[in-house]
Amino acid sequence: MADQKKMVEEITSMDEDFAKWYTDVVKKAELIDYSSVRGCMVFEPYGYAIWENIQKILDGMFKETGHQNVYMPMLIPESLLQKEKDHVEGFAPEVAWVTQGGGQELEERLCIRPTSETLFCEHYRNVIHSYRDLPKLYNQWCSVLRWEKTTRPFLRNMEFLWQEGHTMHETAEEAVAETEQMLNIYARFCEEYLAIPVVKGRKTDKEKFAGAEATYTIEAMMHDGKALQSGTSHYFGDGFARAFDIQFQGRDNKPQYPHQTSWGVSTRIIGGIIMTHGDDSGLVLPPAIAPVQVMVIPIAQHKEGVLEKAEEVKKMISGYCRAGIDCSDNSPGWKFAQYEMKGVPLRLELGPKDIEKGQCVLVRRDTREKAFVPLEKLSAEIPRLLKEIHDSLFARALENRESRTFSATTLEELTKLADERSGYIKAMWCGDLQCEEKLKEVAGVSSRCIPFEQEHISDTCVCCGKPAKEMVYWGKAY
Amino acid sequence: MADQKKMVEEITSMDEDFAKWYTDVVKKAELIDYSSVRGCMVFEPYGYAIWENIQKILDGMFKETGHQNVYMPMLIPESLLQKEKDHVEGFAPEVAWVTQGGGQELEERLCIRPTSETLFCEHYRNVIHSYRDLPKLYNQWCSVLRWEKTTRPFLRNMEFLWQEGHTMHETAEEAVAETEQMLNIYARFCEEYLAIPVVKGRKTDKEKFAGAEATYTIEAMMHDGKALQSGTSHYFGDGFARAFDIQFQGRDNKPQYPHQTSWGVSTRIIGGIIMTHGDDSGLVLPPAIAPVQVMVIPIAQHKEGVLEKAEEVKKMISGYCRAGIDCSDNSPGWKFAQYEMKGVPLRLELGPKDIEKGQCVLVRRDTREKAFVPLEKLSAEIPRLLKEIHDSLFARALENRESRTFSATTLEELTKLADERSGYIKAMWCGDLQCEEKLKEVAGVSSRCIPFEQEHISDTCVCCGKPAKEMVYWGKAY
Repeated sequence: MADQKKMVEEITSMDEDFAKWYTDVVKKAELIDYSSVRGCMVFEPYGYAIWENIQKILDGMFKETGHQNVYMPMLIPESLLQKEKDHVEGFAPEVAWVTQGGGQELEERLCIRPTSETLFCEHYRNVIHSYRDLPKLYNQWCSVLRWEKTTRPFLRNMEFLWQEGHTMHETAEEAVAETEQMLNIYARFCEEYLAIPVVKGRKTDKEKFAGAEATYTIEAMMHDGKALQSGTSHYFGDGFARAFDIQFQGRDNKPQYPHQTSWGVSTRIIGGIIMTHGDDSGLVLPPAIAPVQVMVIPIAQHKEGVLEKAEEVKKMISGYCRAGIDCSDNSPGWKFAQYEMKGVPLRLELGPKDIEKGQCVLVRRDTREKAFVPLEKLSAEIPRLLKEIHDSLFARALENRESRTFSATTLEELTKLADERSGYIKAMWCGDLQCEEKLKEVAGVSSRCIPFEQEHISDTCVCCGKPAKEMVYWGKAY
Repeated sequence: MADQKKMVEEITSMDEDFAKWYTDVVKKAELIDYSSVRGCMVFEPYGYAIWENIQKILDGMFKETGHQNVYMPMLIPESLLQKEKDHVEGFAPEVAWVTQGGGQELEERLCIRPTSETLFCEHYRNVIHSYRDLPKLYNQWCSVLRWEKTTRPFLRNMEFLWQEGHTMHETAEEAVAETEQMLNIYARFCEEYLAIPVVKGRKTDKEKFAGAEATYTIEAMMHDGKALQSGTSHYFGDGFARAFDIQFQGRDNKPQYPHQTSWGVSTRIIGGIIMTHGDDSGLVLPPAIAPVQVMVIPIAQHKEGVLEKAEEVKKMISGYCRAGIDCSDNSPGWKFAQYEMKGVPLRLELGPKDIEKGQCVLVRRDTREKAFVPLEKLSAEIPRLLKEIHDSLFARALENRESRTFSATTLEELTKLADERSGYIKAMWCGDLQCEEKLKEVAGVSSRCIPFEQEHISDTCVCCGKPAKEMVYWGKAY
């Protein structure tokens, strides 16, 4: 038990065991704690604060593009879930069922939402009557639950937090444009705020969302070369509208079915941040979503005036960054290790000698670079460094991706690459499900996406040798 | 169906049928839609935007006082819910049970959280080891579910949104101080932001939270004289800590149990806003939480330059208020009625003649007062009027409460008052449960609270005539 000085415990190194390194970081950086329900996790203050920052940025982007937040019920009656055939087939096996309430057996089972298309459709049926009622551009922030067989913090929680946008449009063109707009917003968010480069593309039929006509995706590559699907945007056509009998009177006075989209980003992305930027000392957070961007650490804090000055500096810089201060009686060395573990982008050290000289020491988390900075220059230097850290994290992640992106023209070549290297393999595909399944079986890779930016690798399908339709990114994925 | 010009439908008058007036407003102001699960409701954009404003203000107040947000699982295993005896007795009858997941029967039932004390305790057991780990000041924003027999939008949803703070402290004194601090924050929030005057006090043992040593409450009075419990703050002592075996090493090196609080405000408060300020034309929103504070309505908008000028004014005032504009082809009369229904605090009318004169018309929702205001004076006039509206809503609500607060010294007097009038009845109480139950039975009133500001009404209990201990507010409640 306590009262001893706390130790910053060591974590497994990435190269030794990437999976163990990941769970070590998640625990030691105090992002997540386990609960007694398998796969349902506690988002601790530091982990949740990252999510709050993500929410704030994305929510602003959604509202700027005309979306409104709503909140739908968390329970879906079985009969409602069953209305759209493909959808229920995809989700029914992985839901949790409420069968008792208020001390009684229910007449109809209710599932905890795994996603909310059916609930939005039920509501849209009540409120969409005329083309004047369109578009409906709704979003909700909530938790959903999917009964996963194996779970991993952030990456595959049974219950996870997300936002789900659900929109209805007068025409197919408008709905497709919305799907693309939201995918672009997600890509911009990943690149400009999380410093994670992404590939934009379309999912194959095998990988698309249950009930969708098309699923668009952004795929990020983790430090170990595996892919993480980081955000998706679905075009439904009028399939759900027909199943739920949602009709509106069109401009031609005739009844029509609206066209639908949905799109989502979840707490999974926090797993992506960890595995893109982290290192053997722990988390490395992109400045835009770091709960604390600059941590002030007083040196020789027992000396007169040090704590006061440190508090003053903290207050001063709080005007232009999220600043923290640690005045606990732990040693400076412990504090350095602790905030490295937590991935705080900048450390600001301030001791008696610095105070005399009117300066402090700024240390970057990502490169460990150290610089003496006059206090009056902090207001220029901190924002500059935060931007530089972001750019450099992005550049490093992009370099990792490029060095791990290969191409193959034959099955042999692809299998060898999949065995020996970890990353994306670009290869042509005929479009047949059989070839997609064979690549999974033989080489252990799945189709990540059919990228919007196509390249011509060869003329024939990497698997069957028939004429190729499209270039696909193949890889292993979380 | 549509394409006809929409009509603003009439609502039932308050005096005719207050309950029907309430549900009319909730529907016509587009706050809530019903779903196919009884008691689980859709928070539509306008209703949810009110909640978002409430969240933003309260969340800021919580963070200012050192609280951190977390997110706990939504599922509680039956064995965990049962750990604290009083708590499970209070909540078990009204929970929903998940008994199947991933296609299989579960070995142990899981309930959807009706409140999260047990989950917080399970986590606190993992992270509290030393007095250095205290206090823990956590809060979460989430939805909870209680299997209610009868439900009403906002006031008694089966699933509702709320925040629940859960804190742990080294000493009982600190925990009690936290309980009081949070009650004061709730009271300040109601009075300074929602314009709802509240009475602060303690609940009787009968009315307190299941498992709490003491429950503090703020009680608001609705337009019809019935009370609404609008926020509660509970002191638990170390009861849960003992039940969950949470111990820390104290300053004296000995193991000790921490002292606990919880406190919550829910979407119920939106029902309180409606029933405190609304009138026969619909909702009346206090400016601080109104999604739109000023709605710009162009007059004769087909005339050249009107729409452009209206957009320009809307943009201009957006710098200092939440402004909206309605350029639809509905008539100005329809728009007036529509935004009265929605309770927008100020309407800004702008027509060709106004534009010529460089002025506009501002109309208050609460008093219907109308004033011509030069455009260059809007930046002073709008904030001034919004403040005036807040003050005047508060004064009106306070006046309603005062005119409906009575006192009684005998059971006969109290019963007569409860029969003939609707409001608070101040009366002395001996402290016995029997008398409390008798007042419910005979006069149909419950104890709302034992107010912190005590008055001496008489020497003896209003019910049994024995020596009185305390003055209690009695009344009917939502």
